[in-house]
Amino acid sequence: MAAPEIDRLIQVLSRLPGLGPRSARRAALSLIKRKESALLPLIDALQSAADHVRTCSICGNLDGTDPCGICRDERRDGAILCVVADVADLWALERTAAYKGHYHVLGGVLSALDGIGPEQLNLGSLFRRIEAGGVKEVVLALGATVDGQTTAHFLSDRLQPFGVTVSRLAHGVPVGGELDYLDDGTLIQALQARQSV
Amino acid sequence: MAAPEIDRLIQVLSRLPGLGPRSARRAALSLIKRKESALLPLIDALQSAADHVRTCSICGNLDGTDPCGICRDERRDGAILCVVADVADLWALERTAAYKGHYHVLGGVLSALDGIGPEQLNLGSLFRRIEAGGVKEVVLALGATVDGQTTAHFLSDRLQPFGVTVSRLAHGVPVGGELDYLDDGTLIQALQARQSV
Repeated sequence: MAAPEIDRLIQVLSRLPGLGPRSARRAALSLIKRKESALLPLIDALQSAADHVRTCSICGNLDGTDPCGICRDERRDGAILCVVADVADLWALERTAAYKGHYHVLGGVLSALDGIGPEQLNLGSLFRRIEAGGVKEVVLALGATVDGQTTAHFLSDRLQPFGVTVSRLAHGVPVGGELDYLDDGTLIQALQARQSV
Repeated sequence: MAAPEIDRLIQVLSRLPGLGPRSARRAALSLIKRKESALLPLIDALQSAADHVRTCSICGNLDGTDPCGICRDERRDGAILCVVADVADLWALERTAAYKGHYHVLGGVLSALDGIGPEQLNLGSLFRRIEAGGVKEVVLALGATVDGQTTAHFLSDRLQPFGVTVSRLAHGVPVGGELDYLDDGTLIQALQARQSV
């Protein structure tokens, strides 16, 4: 249909999460039409990410340096370790600016369906970090999904021998949520974990 | 929050049509995590599009050659010229494989709101192509929007002196469409243009 260069660009773009074939066509066209203001800056941004971004050897975060900025930040509290499934979850927590401890990125959650077992996750380095001492509390910030909660149970079992406090994020009514629209599971959790006012 | 390289990549990606800030973050993360299989191929595809894709000087299509493959294709009927607003519309018509004439890409439609007048569109070259002779019919394949139809009226006026047949795409019930869900405008058009069976 179009030039092979355009077809290939559409094909590569359509593999990005959130872009289907139609939006990949729109994106490709918009890039080609705005070569100076969109296409070349995107090449530049991708190249610089490819050249500089690396995985932190301590926590598994992505950053321009190894160890990452969070692991090197001495104002952060090394006694609390927040375990997240993915770098995107770490970013979400960082956006809140409400957490000032360290992180550990698992790189996924246990999933029987996807064939992800403990050996596929970044667990060895987590246990080594806790063994090395200094960590008093581990916060399991995993999704409230079946796989996320399975992983949280597995981890709290495995963390028992280390004698650290293990906590998890609170479950309940999301801020702005209306009771009428909430699922039963969330309402049950919110009732059971009710707090005195 | 993240490394400046990641932030910049997210920012550039979020300017693509169809990608908001959240999906741009997901896309950036997925690219960085799959450097060899996704990030580098995307750089390569973008670079090759930047290097090779150009605008056809005859019809305004985007292709690896100038004139484009459609303008150079001698099996196509040079007596029919299909006027489209955008290269994406040309692609949509080509996907049907139902049209074997030539194209002319306007680069937009007249729009009072967006300040797009006749001088912003690829019109001079359209009139020159028709003046040069050989074109018997001009098909106005413009959207059934206010701006699209304004442009179609404007063009059919301006094309009158050239003595070519001017046609437009049929309006009516889309294939697979249920009457109950159609808007009144489409139903009125479909009624007025009813065909004997």
